[in-house]
Amino acid sequence: MKISEFQNLMKNLYLHQDRDRGIERTFIWLVEEVGELANQLKVKNEKDLNKISEEMADIIAWTSSLANVLGIDLETALFEKYPNKCLKCNSNPCCCSSSTDSR
Amino acid sequence: MKISEFQNLMKNLYLHQDRDRGIERTFIWLVEEVGELANQLKVKNEKDLNKISEEMADIIAWTSSLANVLGIDLETALFEKYPNKCLKCNSNPCCCSSSTDSR
Repeated sequence: MKISEFQNLMKNLYLHQDRDRGIERTFIWLVEEVGELANQLKVKNEKDLNKISEEMADIIAWTSSLANVLGIDLETALFEKYPNKCLKCNSNPCCCSSSTDSR
Repeated sequence: MKISEFQNLMKNLYLHQDRDRGIERTFIWLVEEVGELANQLKVKNEKDLNKISEEMADIIAWTSSLANVLGIDLETALFEKYPNKCLKCNSNPCCCSSSTDSR
């Protein structure tokens, strides 16, 4: 499924609710999902990958909802910020330095 | 671009760094991006849609990085959690109630 198709699915399913809720409260829902992911990740051993997958799906879904309310095209945003190379070192794979926080 | 293609792009570009950084610190990066989105959204008038788009792209990118470290397929996760209907009311568009928080 394309990123644009997923964003459109969210639009068809939920835009009427997302618009009514508005930008601020839709963002709060996104933050809640990040908290739910944290809740899964804090488990030290035997993390539940199914639940983690669900929370990740929710994060992408609520980001898509927020993008829909704001009229933002996520696929275009991803193309521009993440072309087929690292924007800092112009390489793929990124070879920015030995730091793991170079992005 | 497919969701799986974007996740693979993140894998090719950054997985070596993401693995070194590990789950916890990669999650912290995701949270930082959510904070950067908050920073843009708190502007009351004339929000900068370009910057908001970038922060949204970063949220999806860091979610993809985290999924890569954990071996999670995001496209599958999205299909399962968000099929072509609302899982609660079985409809598209969702008609769960007049509440805007029914999801």
